[in-house]
Amino acid sequence: MTKEKKIKAQKLKGFQDFEPLLMKKKLEFLHLAQNLSALAGYEPIDTPSLEYTETILGEGGETDKQVFRFKDNGDRDVALRFDLTMSFARYISENQGTLIFPFKRFQYGKAWRAEKPQKGRFREFTQCDLDIIGAAPYSGEIDLISTFMNILDQILKEDFTVFVNHRRLISSLIKKTFQGISESDEQTILINLDKLDKIGSESVIRLLSDKFSFDTSSSRTLVDLIVNSKEDNLKAVADYLKGHETGIKDLEDLKETVRIIENSCLSKFGKIKIDLSTVRGLGYYTGMIFETTIDHHQDFGAICSGGRYDNLAERFLSRQLSGVGGSIGIDRILAAKVERLNNHETPSTDAVFIAVAEEKTRPYAFKILEHLRKHKIIANIDLKHQKLAQQFKWANRAGYKKVITIGESERQTGLLNVKYMETGQQKKDIAIADLVNELL
Amino acid sequence: MTKEKKIKAQKLKGFQDFEPLLMKKKLEFLHLAQNLSALAGYEPIDTPSLEYTETILGEGGETDKQVFRFKDNGDRDVALRFDLTMSFARYISENQGTLIFPFKRFQYGKAWRAEKPQKGRFREFTQCDLDIIGAAPYSGEIDLISTFMNILDQILKEDFTVFVNHRRLISSLIKKTFQGISESDEQTILINLDKLDKIGSESVIRLLSDKFSFDTSSSRTLVDLIVNSKEDNLKAVADYLKGHETGIKDLEDLKETVRIIENSCLSKFGKIKIDLSTVRGLGYYTGMIFETTIDHHQDFGAICSGGRYDNLAERFLSRQLSGVGGSIGIDRILAAKVERLNNHETPSTDAVFIAVAEEKTRPYAFKILEHLRKHKIIANIDLKHQKLAQQFKWANRAGYKKVITIGESERQTGLLNVKYMETGQQKKDIAIADLVNELL
Repeated sequence: MTKEKKIKAQKLKGFQDFEPLLMKKKLEFLHLAQNLSALAGYEPIDTPSLEYTETILGEGGETDKQVFRFKDNGDRDVALRFDLTMSFARYISENQGTLIFPFKRFQYGKAWRAEKPQKGRFREFTQCDLDIIGAAPYSGEIDLISTFMNILDQILKEDFTVFVNHRRLISSLIKKTFQGISESDEQTILINLDKLDKIGSESVIRLLSDKFSFDTSSSRTLVDLIVNSKEDNLKAVADYLKGHETGIKDLEDLKETVRIIENSCLSKFGKIKIDLSTVRGLGYYTGMIFETTIDHHQDFGAICSGGRYDNLAERFLSRQLSGVGGSIGIDRILAAKVERLNNHETPSTDAVFIAVAEEKTRPYAFKILEHLRKHKIIANIDLKHQKLAQQFKWANRAGYKKVITIGESERQTGLLNVKYMETGQQKKDIAIADLVNELL
Repeated sequence: MTKEKKIKAQKLKGFQDFEPLLMKKKLEFLHLAQNLSALAGYEPIDTPSLEYTETILGEGGETDKQVFRFKDNGDRDVALRFDLTMSFARYISENQGTLIFPFKRFQYGKAWRAEKPQKGRFREFTQCDLDIIGAAPYSGEIDLISTFMNILDQILKEDFTVFVNHRRLISSLIKKTFQGISESDEQTILINLDKLDKIGSESVIRLLSDKFSFDTSSSRTLVDLIVNSKEDNLKAVADYLKGHETGIKDLEDLKETVRIIENSCLSKFGKIKIDLSTVRGLGYYTGMIFETTIDHHQDFGAICSGGRYDNLAERFLSRQLSGVGGSIGIDRILAAKVERLNNHETPSTDAVFIAVAEEKTRPYAFKILEHLRKHKIIANIDLKHQKLAQQFKWANRAGYKKVITIGESERQTGLLNVKYMETGQQKKDIAIADLVNELL
């Protein structure tokens, strides 16, 4: 009302609004995740968005720079959570005395990263996590991945693939190929193997031999084994690992895990597949790892990933608490679906609109409104006190297909008319007792 | 794993974890609010937690000091949202061109205030808002308050009262009592009337006359009228306002609103009541205002409140957008319920536990597990690979009342046994086809 200079209405870069169509989808996804994880015995928890910075920060890696960190009013060094994991580690440490392990958690919530915004990548995003603390390999992995697949099945309703690998298996392959290799050289190889999907085998081999001076023919052997694993050529991997007991055991366990999930999991759209080129978060994970992509939308990247970690709470506790867990990136999935959603964004609704013909019948109209809502029919009423013609115009513009007009005669007779806006047809003299059936 | 000094696992002051029992309740509340507001045609939206500070801040009042504000990595002045309203005003301003008014929104999410933590009052809390932009008085108020009452009915399942008042009505009373009173003196009186519940009539009258030098007998007249309004003594108010048209009209409208809500709203536990001592957020609200308390837990304060505001988006737009809206304080309601919840916190679950007798039958056990989950039976399996006796011990401790043991003979015959832990009774040789019925 003041004539002062107006503020520009703008969001921060990398932050997004969810308009109703998108938000309905998001709420539907979250609700499915919640229900299906509850069925599998995951317990919902929540933790604060803001924590002491020391709780949130890692060991100074790239991600630490992306943390929203500041001094609060009490001069405490605080940070917005980067993911749902660190805060969970704090939760587990604080409550270890009362929790019964294995403890299975379900949590969803926002997390914040000051990274460069990209397609489907935001500075504020919603994660949906499942974790099991204290489960043995590979039972934990089977339970976790099956549950994720059942959730993704309902959310995506399109083909997706879970790619699994084992951190120790890939390490065994490297050790077998480059005998006596150092820790740091092994890391270098891992980081470069992670580029296979992006730059291809030849470039990776060239990188390894030219830039890092690894023997070219060994590099080729390793890369070929890994790339061929995608074509289910696991026998070659097993043959190669002969004599390397840990590696062979890990491969066998991986195959058995995949087999059990294939045979028991209820997912219609999901497949699970061993892929030795799946190399992720290697500082963090210590056992099986997995990544999921939508089959015809691989450009959207991993939509659900995780793995086994040795010690969740090591920054807080001496006690070892190992677990297996993962996240669904709800916002990324929504972004992948958004184009298709927008195509349907014609305003059209199953809701019923109640037009008020005379002001004095408004109380009665509100009664009918509540009656409909009670019977699970979405219903709205004229809230602008407009003329009847305006009300119909509004209902049309807002996409209502059914309009009930209420005037004095309707109030006196208790008989109502429903107008079907698309056909113009009217259904007359419906008793209130029959109204719900007519509208369903 | 390292022997470094451990970090203390601690939350920030005023922040809370939600353990499973509490979180289940919270998710149930949010889902009810979501469903019931959807039925009433409220559209869900979401807005960012972090905004430019100028979007969030008011005009330098007390609340501005409670904002979590900082410079982000791009040196922008940013703030965590203080409530869901300012961010909504920005949303409405940015999208005014495409929204169809009246626009009804539903939004829930976290908000942050660096205020002193108290019982049921946290620095991070969840709000659940309904607003209607562009609705006429009092249709908007009726739709909004009825919907809130329907939601509170389901969430609280105990008696509550919505106290309504009108800002202009109270202003008319003051103007009638103190002819020619200044704006700022009127504010002083309002602020002091707000203390009636806490310090009582006599103290307020003394304050007004001693400290602020208002005429004692006029102050008493005003205070008596307001306090007596609680006993439905509205005729006295109407008589007093005789000749003051606006005031009389506002009182009539208020009574009519209450009457319509009483007659149409479906709430079983909720009452609505005019109470002229309900004085809130007066800088912000311009029409009807309301506050809700739980009848036998008034000590928990207002759990749902709001009112009509003249111009939501004035800081962004010249266009006037008036609305009516309110918030449910979900965390405060949870806090009010938490003691009663804790009484039931014996670990006991309807879930089924699957014990694995022999490792080689584990794949089959996972199959049964998925079968149960598919049929909406919450089911868990041994994930620790323990001996059978240990598994039973664990199931007992975790509160499972039904255990299915799966071994080689079960796998071969397809017949399963269910053990009821409380009675020790066993039900034997159940075919898989009958299993779900047995467990329901």
